[in-house]
Amino acid sequence: MRVVVPFAAETPKTRLEPVLTTAERSALARAMLADVLRAVVEAGYEPTVVSTAPLELSALELPGEIETSTSVTVDDRPLTEAVNARLPGGSESDADGDDGEGGEAVAVVMADLALATPTALEGLFAPDTDVAIAPGRAGGTNALVVRDPAFRVDYHGASYLDHREIAREAGASLETVDSFRLATDVDEPVDLVEVLVHGHETDRAPSRLREFGFELVEQGGRVVAVRDGEPE
Amino acid sequence: MRVVVPFAAETPKTRLEPVLTTAERSALARAMLADVLRAVVEAGYEPTVVSTAPLELSALELPGEIETSTSVTVDDRPLTEAVNARLPGGSESDADGDDGEGGEAVAVVMADLALATPTALEGLFAPDTDVAIAPGRAGGTNALVVRDPAFRVDYHGASYLDHREIAREAGASLETVDSFRLATDVDEPVDLVEVLVHGHETDRAPSRLREFGFELVEQGGRVVAVRDGEPE
Repeated sequence: MRVVVPFAAETPKTRLEPVLTTAERSALARAMLADVLRAVVEAGYEPTVVSTAPLELSALELPGEIETSTSVTVDDRPLTEAVNARLPGGSESDADGDDGEGGEAVAVVMADLALATPTALEGLFAPDTDVAIAPGRAGGTNALVVRDPAFRVDYHGASYLDHREIAREAGASLETVDSFRLATDVDEPVDLVEVLVHGHETDRAPSRLREFGFELVEQGGRVVAVRDGEPE
Repeated sequence: MRVVVPFAAETPKTRLEPVLTTAERSALARAMLADVLRAVVEAGYEPTVVSTAPLELSALELPGEIETSTSVTVDDRPLTEAVNARLPGGSESDADGDDGEGGEAVAVVMADLALATPTALEGLFAPDTDVAIAPGRAGGTNALVVRDPAFRVDYHGASYLDHREIAREAGASLETVDSFRLATDVDEPVDLVEVLVHGHETDRAPSRLREFGFELVEQGGRVVAVRDGEPE
């Protein structure tokens, strides 16, 4: 199985603008990418970062085995087009793949799944279905595996519901993967708390946030991410 | 294993006040409770609703087998106290339970886990650890299983982190259960979209929301729950 990690190199995490500078958003996005790549490699795969702009892998300061297992390709097309080109039925698929028709299975894992772990990814990769989807909140698609050349993605709007419909129309079997870790994409200030609560010690993203001055504070019976004493 | 479902009968879902009347919040809370009870029974257990006030089970209009498998007990103490009394080491635990010391395992499943399914609950019940926790967003504890009489809950603040610490101090083994369905408690207007996206046709809660006039609408590249044309 090939694992594709789309990465918006030039305009990272614009919805975090209220709480992070441009440089910080870029650093956090790269930290999350590094965490995702490590989880993919530790799950036993060799990820390909599909970046919207040239990306120096060495600048990510990945551990040696993660860097040597990772490749980068640049594709400045919109997300949906760049991903579809790499699916089993796409123009840039591996047509000589496992099953001899339409290439091998392809997984697409978003670069902002800061809580992704090898175990969570294995849960996504395991189902023997034409399509497996790990939904995000608000109807998003955070990660998926495609084994059917007739399936295409469409990331606009309620992509999870659209992907179910596309699979149905293609006659493809589909499994929804139930994972909080994969459902948590870090898009908005309110998501930062999840990185601090559930990130592991060796993860880059929580370390970055702590460097920026974020910490967990109890507020009104809940916990929030606060920067230098100010709520997110 | 005993399964306890705490239910705030008198002040249900106050944080949904901006979008639902008192009567609607009460109806939605009861619909979610009915969905949770069905999931517990279909997973093979007989739930006990621990309600803050008297609750007519018949008013929930549960299917026959769900109603006969469910019991209700009233406990008007705060959540933490009412739950602790029923844990293996609590005053109202079943001291003649499976292991002969401190009673059998106890699961605590919140009544607002509208997306709970038998499969998701089985994932919570399965780990052979002293404590298993399904975290909610923002450091909450949405569901847990306790097999160690030394463990106590504390639902104030960042309860997930506190529960990890309490388990550590008690020398209890702990597993975190990775489930988006169990991580989704329906507390705030933004949570309603999850009920409409992921609820099943036979579930009560999504039916209620649709009766109230809510529907899914694409807005700015995401999907939101909108009532009679107005965003949540």
